[in-house]
Amino acid sequence: MTDPVYETALGASTKDKITLLGRDLAEEVMGTVSFGELAFWLATQRRPSPGETRVFEAVLAALADHGFTPTAIVTRLTYLSAPDSVQGALAAGLLGGGSRFLGVTEDCGRFLHAVLAEAELPSDERGWDALALETVEKRRAERKFVPGLGHHVHKDGDPRTPRLFAIADEEGLRGPHLELFAAIGRVHPRVLGKTLPLNGAGVCGAALADLGLPLELLRGFALLARTAGLIGQLAEELRRPVANDIFLSVDLNNRSVAPDPEP
Amino acid sequence: MTDPVYETALGASTKDKITLLGRDLAEEVMGTVSFGELAFWLATQRRPSPGETRVFEAVLAALADHGFTPTAIVTRLTYLSAPDSVQGALAAGLLGGGSRFLGVTEDCGRFLHAVLAEAELPSDERGWDALALETVEKRRAERKFVPGLGHHVHKDGDPRTPRLFAIADEEGLRGPHLELFAAIGRVHPRVLGKTLPLNGAGVCGAALADLGLPLELLRGFALLARTAGLIGQLAEELRRPVANDIFLSVDLNNRSVAPDPEP
Amino acid sequence: MTDPVYETALGASTKDKITLLGRDLAEEVMGTVSFGELAFWLATQRRPSPGETRVFEAVLAALADHGFTPTAIVTRLTYLSAPDSVQGALAAGLLGGGSRFLGVTEDCGRFLHAVLAEAELPSDERGWDALALETVEKRRAERKFVPGLGHHVHKDGDPRTPRLFAIADEEGLRGPHLELFAAIGRVHPRVLGKTLPLNGAGVCGAALADLGLPLELLRGFALLARTAGLIGQLAEELRRPVANDIFLSVDLNNRSVAPDPEP
Amino acid sequence: MTDPVYETALGASTKDKITLLGRDLAEEVMGTVSFGELAFWLATQRRPSPGETRVFEAVLAALADHGFTPTAIVTRLTYLSAPDSVQGALAAGLLGGGSRFLGVTEDCGRFLHAVLAEAELPSDERGWDALALETVEKRRAERKFVPGLGHHVHKDGDPRTPRLFAIADEEGLRGPHLELFAAIGRVHPRVLGKTLPLNGAGVCGAALADLGLPLELLRGFALLARTAGLIGQLAEELRRPVANDIFLSVDLNNRSVAPDPEP
Repeated sequence: MTDPVYETALGASTKDKITLLGRDLAEEVMGTVSFGELAFWLATQRRPSPGETRVFEAVLAALADHGFTPTAIVTRLTYLSAPDSVQGALAAGLLGGGSRFLGVTEDCGRFLHAVLAEAELPSDERGWDALALETVEKRRAERKFVPGLGHHVHKDGDPRTPRLFAIADEEGLRGPHLELFAAIGRVHPRVLGKTLPLNGAGVCGAALADLGLPLELLRGFALLARTAGLIGQLAEELRRPVANDIFLSVDLNNRSVAPDPEP
Repeated sequence: MTDPVYETALGASTKDKITLLGRDLAEEVMGTVSFGELAFWLATQRRPSPGETRVFEAVLAALADHGFTPTAIVTRLTYLSAPDSVQGALAAGLLGGGSRFLGVTEDCGRFLHAVLAEAELPSDERGWDALALETVEKRRAERKFVPGLGHHVHKDGDPRTPRLFAIADEEGLRGPHLELFAAIGRVHPRVLGKTLPLNGAGVCGAALADLGLPLELLRGFALLARTAGLIGQLAEELRRPVANDIFLSVDLNNRSVAPDPEP
Repeated sequence: MTDPVYETALGASTKDKITLLGRDLAEEVMGTVSFGELAFWLATQRRPSPGETRVFEAVLAALADHGFTPTAIVTRLTYLSAPDSVQGALAAGLLGGGSRFLGVTEDCGRFLHAVLAEAELPSDERGWDALALETVEKRRAERKFVPGLGHHVHKDGDPRTPRLFAIADEEGLRGPHLELFAAIGRVHPRVLGKTLPLNGAGVCGAALADLGLPLELLRGFALLARTAGLIGQLAEELRRPVANDIFLSVDLNNRSVAPDPEP
Repeated sequence: MTDPVYETALGASTKDKITLLGRDLAEEVMGTVSFGELAFWLATQRRPSPGETRVFEAVLAALADHGFTPTAIVTRLTYLSAPDSVQGALAAGLLGGGSRFLGVTEDCGRFLHAVLAEAELPSDERGWDALALETVEKRRAERKFVPGLGHHVHKDGDPRTPRLFAIADEEGLRGPHLELFAAIGRVHPRVLGKTLPLNGAGVCGAALADLGLPLELLRGFALLARTAGLIGQLAEELRRPVANDIFLSVDLNNRSVAPDPEP
C-alpha cells in the first residue's frame, strides 16, 4: 500500500528547530505565551485574545480543586498503593472525571448550544427570557433536569457564578450561551416553583462554549484544570499524608456478610 | 474508633463560600491568578513571583506537545476506540508519561539535586566546572549516562535549552541546578571525548528543581503540560482524523507467524 | 458522626484465615475453583454450574485477542514509552474498551434484554421469529442498527457465532437472549433486504445475558478477556518488538501543515 | 520508506476464519480451552499441562480479591464518579497495582530468579538451606528486606502459602524458585532472630516463576486476577453501594488548615 500521511499543525521538529502551531517554540512561544493561553491555542489552533485567556483561566481556576472529591481520594489512594507511578495516580484520578462529578460543565455547554442551534438569537433581555422560559418548560415536560441548575451545598447561590459573569462582562465576552444561562437563572422559578442556583460547573460550560472551544472536548478542560488540582493533592499527600488513614477507616469498618446471589 | 481527621489547605467550601489555598476562590483567585501561577501555587502552597511563573510556564510550553509521540498516538487511538470517554483517552496518553519518554525531566532534576546535596556550593564558574567534571567522571566510572545529556534529533543543540537559560537569567532565577547543568554542558567533552547537547527535557528538570517544586512530582509537571497537548491532539483528531489510518496501517501490515514458545 | 459500616461478601481475612465469597480461600477455592468459574462467582456471588462455566469461558476465549486492534497497539506503545509500569500499559489498553471496539457485547445483551422485558416469551420458533421480526422492523423505523448484526470482515458469517450457539446447546443453556438473537439472524433479511452475519461480539453478549451476569457490567467481561489478551501482547512485544516501528512509521509519515483555526 | 511488517502469533482473521496462537479459535479454542489455560498460553505461546494450569489458577485465586484494598476502593469511587465508563473504573483500580500493594509477587519472583541465576542448583534440602542462609545473610548485610517474608496480618502464617506448596507438590511442579523460597522460610530465623511468615504474594511469585512465565510480567498476572476481583467489587457496589458513604466519611471529616509553603 502507499504510505499514509499524517497531517498535524501541532508539534514538529527538525535537527535545528522545533515548531508548535506553526511558531518557533523556543523563540516565539517559550517565555511569551502563558500556559492557559497555550492550552486554548492548542485546542482551537487560534491564538486567544488577552480577554479570552482571562475568561478561560478563570474557568480553569473555578474547576481546579474541590477538596476531598472522589477524584482526589482516588489519586491519593493510588499513589499510596503505587508510589512508583505518578502518571498512574494522576490518570486514575482523571478517570473519575466522567458524567457525574465533572460532566456538568460539558453537559451544560452542549445543552445550551443545542437550544441556540434551533432558535433565533434574541436581541434583548425580554427575548432571552422568553427563549429560556420555553426551554425550561420543554425540559420540565420531558421530565428532565436543566443542566447547571442547582447545587447540593451552595443552595443560595454558587459564588463562582456571578464572578464568572462579571469577568466575562469586563472582557466583553458574554456571548449567547452565557446570556441564555443567565436568563434560565431569571425565569426558572416561574416554571419550577422554586429558585435554584446556577452552579459553577454550569456557568463554566456556558463560558467555554462562548469562547468557541470544541463542545466534544469541554470535559477535557475540566480535566486539564483538575490535573493541576491533583498534582496539588499529591504534593499535599507528601507532607500531610491521609491516604493510609482513609484506607484503614474503610478497612476497619468493613463487615463481612453472606453472599447474596443474583436472582 | 474515633473519627480520623483529614487535613487539607486546598479546596474547601461552606454554603456561601469556596476557598482554595486559604483564599476566596471567586474573589481572590478567579480572574486574578493565571493557570500556570495557580498550578505552581497548588503544588507548593506558596504563591510564585511573576518571574517564577514565567519560568514555570516556559517549561510547560517546552513540554506540552512534540507531535506524533507514542502518548499522542495512544490518546488518538483510544479516542477512536472509545469516543464515549474523553477522560479515558487523556488518561491513556498520560500513562505513557513514564521513564522513557517523559521521565528525563524528573530524572535530571533528581540527579542534579542529589549531586548538590553532597557538595559544597561553588562560588564561581571554575568551581562549577570542577564539580561538573567530578560528577561526569563519576557517572562514567559507574558506566551510567548523565541525565539530560544527548538528543536523538537535535544533535547540534536543542533550541529549548539556551532559551530556557536565557529566560531564567532574565528573571534572576538561575539557581544551583541550572548552574550545575550548564557546567556539565561545558565540561563533559573532556571526559566523554565528544560533545553532546543538553536536551530540553533535562534543562526543564533543572529549572523546575531551582523553582523549589517537589522533586517527587517533577514528572507531574511534564504530565500537566502534556494534558494540554493531548487535548490539542484530540481537537485536531476531530477535524483531521488520522487514528483510523494509523490503525489500518498496522493491521494491513501484520503478518501471522507461528507461536514461538518460551524456552 | 457514627462510624459507617461497609458490607462485603468478597475477600475478608483474620489473623489465621482468609475467606472469599464465604468460603475458605486456601482450602475451598485454591486448587479447586478454576479462574473462569471464580470470575463468574465473584460477579454474581453464585457458584456457576460446570456448563455455565464452559459457556462463560468460551465467551472469554472469543473476546480475548483480535490481533493488532487499537487496544493492543495502545498497550504496546504505552509499554514502549513507560516500561516501568506494566499496570499502566494494561490500563491504557483497557481504556480503549469503550463503545466502539468492545461495546457491542454489552450493547447487544442490553438490547435483547430490553426487548424481552417488554414481550411475552414465545413458546416456539414461530413465536421467536414473530418477535424478532417486530423488533427488527421497529429498529428500522427508528433508523437504528440492530446491535450484533453485521461484521466488516466476516461478511458471510462470523465463525464464533455458530460455535457459541452449539456450546450453549450442548450445555442446555440456550436461553431467551440467544433464542431472540438467533431469530433476528433468521428474519432480518425480510426487513433489511440483505443478509448480515450475527457477529461474535453480539452472540457473546446474548450468552452472557442468558447466564444471568449483571447487564451493567457485560462490558467488564470483555475487558477481563482482553486483559489476558493484552498480557499476551506484552509478552510478544518482549520478544518480537513492534511498538517502536509503529511509532516510527507514524512519525516518519507525519506532515506539518498550517494551523486551521476553529471557525 | 518500505512498509514495515508487524509479526504476531496471536489473533488473526480472514473472511472465513479466526486463528489464535495458530489454532482455529472457534473449533479448537472455544469450549475446549479454559480461561486460565488460555491466559497462560497467550503469555508463553506454549500450551500448559493440566497441572501447570491448576497451579496457575490457584495463584490467580489467591490474588483475585482481598476485600477493601485501595484498588477496590478506587474502582468503586471511580464508578461512583463516572458510572458511564466501566473501563475507566477497572483501569483506575488496576493502576494501584504497583510496587506496594501488588508488587510483592513480581519482586519475589525476580529476586529468587536472580539468586538462582548466580548459584549452582542444590541437590538436596541441606544444599537449599545453605543457599537460602547465604541469601538471607547477604540481604541482611545490605540492610534489605527479603521479598515475600512477613505479613502485617497473618503473623503466624499465611494460609495460602502451605496450600500453594501442596498444590505444586501434587502436580509435581515444585521447582527451584519454590524450593529456595521454602528454604528461606526454614532458615531465616537463624539470621533474623525471629520467625516471619512466607506470605501469599511471595509464594505466588515463586510459583509463577517456576511455571516459566515471563518475569517482566509477573505483576501482570496479579493484575489479571485482580481484574476479576474488581468486577466483583463493581457487581457488589451495584447492589450494596458503599462508595458514596466512603466519600462522605472523608468529606465530613476533612479539616481546612492554613497553607504550609514548601521551605
